[in-house]
Amino acid sequence: MNATIRQLQDSYLTYLGQNPFIGSPKNLYDPMNYILSLGGKRIRPLLVLIGNQAAKGDANDALPISHLVEVFHNFSLVHDDIMDRADIRRGQPTVHVKWDMPTAILSGDNLLVKTFQIWSQYKGPHQNEILNDYIRVATEVCEGQQKDMDFSNPNAIVTESAYLDMIKQKTAVLLGAALKMGFLSAGANPQHADTFYDFALQMGMSFQMMDDYLDSFGDESKTGKKQGGDILEGKNTWLKIKSLELDPEKTKVLFDTNGDNRIQPVVNFWKELGLDKGIQELAQRYYQKSLIDLNQLEQWGYDTKLLNDLSEWLLGREK
Amino acid sequence: MNATIRQLQDSYLTYLGQNPFIGSPKNLYDPMNYILSLGGKRIRPLLVLIGNQAAKGDANDALPISHLVEVFHNFSLVHDDIMDRADIRRGQPTVHVKWDMPTAILSGDNLLVKTFQIWSQYKGPHQNEILNDYIRVATEVCEGQQKDMDFSNPNAIVTESAYLDMIKQKTAVLLGAALKMGFLSAGANPQHADTFYDFALQMGMSFQMMDDYLDSFGDESKTGKKQGGDILEGKNTWLKIKSLELDPEKTKVLFDTNGDNRIQPVVNFWKELGLDKGIQELAQRYYQKSLIDLNQLEQWGYDTKLLNDLSEWLLGREK
Repeated sequence: MNATIRQLQDSYLTYLGQNPFIGSPKNLYDPMNYILSLGGKRIRPLLVLIGNQAAKGDANDALPISHLVEVFHNFSLVHDDIMDRADIRRGQPTVHVKWDMPTAILSGDNLLVKTFQIWSQYKGPHQNEILNDYIRVATEVCEGQQKDMDFSNPNAIVTESAYLDMIKQKTAVLLGAALKMGFLSAGANPQHADTFYDFALQMGMSFQMMDDYLDSFGDESKTGKKQGGDILEGKNTWLKIKSLELDPEKTKVLFDTNGDNRIQPVVNFWKELGLDKGIQELAQRYYQKSLIDLNQLEQWGYDTKLLNDLSEWLLGREK
Repeated sequence: MNATIRQLQDSYLTYLGQNPFIGSPKNLYDPMNYILSLGGKRIRPLLVLIGNQAAKGDANDALPISHLVEVFHNFSLVHDDIMDRADIRRGQPTVHVKWDMPTAILSGDNLLVKTFQIWSQYKGPHQNEILNDYIRVATEVCEGQQKDMDFSNPNAIVTESAYLDMIKQKTAVLLGAALKMGFLSAGANPQHADTFYDFALQMGMSFQMMDDYLDSFGDESKTGKKQGGDILEGKNTWLKIKSLELDPEKTKVLFDTNGDNRIQPVVNFWKELGLDKGIQELAQRYYQKSLIDLNQLEQWGYDTKLLNDLSEWLLGREK
């Protein structure tokens, strides 16, 4: 990881440490601080800070916005973990497991309220544009999550484009908005903002496809994760959707096999169908689109070095 | 009910009908429109409109704020019904029963996001003051609900003041804020706003105490509700807290009796302890405080007729 990216990460972590949520009752505020303490790569606040830096903004304006985005992301984690019945997050019990489900609902709600309080205290440039972007994206994330749940219904017929649209709403638009909001916090020309947005969105899509590739075809010794988690869960991923499109019968037969036994046969079948290459090509296409945006931003005179570094780090293209 | 109050209610219902939530997927947006269609007295939007009228404001400024408050209230109903495992609301299935729990969490979340979108489109007076009040109260409602859940733990020791504070946060502050936000939307002197807030807060506390009185001591033929619902549930109400304070042993013995059998003995015991009078006196004290506010508002020259009418209607003092 690039030294400056590490510095920006640290500056957010310092800000986070200085701004714990304070209030009572304890059972409402402890889970809010707990989920924010669990760590992770802090990609979203990083994108905000990088967007601000690329346009030579004041980092003091970007820090509250980076916090807003990270708090929103954590709100969505708390509620998604209830819906997905996930017990563990980053090696620790999820909020509804450590406390209980009502507490997880409410502390998530209060995190969402707090994002708007953070915005209301933001005094930097482009306040209204930032709020409007945030509200639009917050709704899109809800829509994406609902589509994800709709698609997990065993009777759902999911097309490739509906799936990619769901992934875009559920994860990529928030990355786009984070970079754009950071850029806006620098007070720069708002006409360039959507190119920042699109860069991070395409990068996010590429990241997600690479993540799905690695889940099924990755080397456990490198990814650190058990191969085939998505296959085991029977998750509707791009790979499964394509497989159902190309050979519905065989796909169904293979997925009817229970548990661990299905992983290797599905992986082999998908390689026969060329889906391992297909998903890498898709990831590559999104990456190419992000490069077109990056090129445009460079032509406009923005400092794109950190954007480049972040992309290389996230997409595993670091030299 | 007073004719003008009916007219204001109708004007909100017209506005609500003209502003359905539109979007996809259906499973996210249908529950949002469903919960808002279930009816009720619409007290909160009414308070906003009355606050605006009392200061001779433009009703077009108050309508979006009345909608914001009603949407927030409905967000809290959807999530509270999950937490309280309530199956029925206003005679209809609750959202998590009609759809499912994840859908109820998400459509509630999206309702909460929408309240801020409504605010962002509000162009009337005192935008920032209204937002700040709303955010403060939204957090207080979360805090109140968490306290309510903490208090429902069988081992919880709940004092009278902690209980009244919980009720205040969970229900009365939103009534206060509704009236205050409506008043602010009229563009009047913000120094008078807190007296509007306090009036509706005290009225709300009085209403809640009368509601608790009627639940245990009311005449079924008049209330339309089965007597003793709170006793059956074993709910920590002011009555039960006082009863535990005055005679912990006998209270526990009576509440150890199961189901319907406990209702009449508890009611009789509470009458012996004078709690039926005690809670009426408490309701009366809150009512008296609201009258002091009303008197002050009248002295400042506001039109308090509708506030008076609303209070009489809600507190059952209509002539």
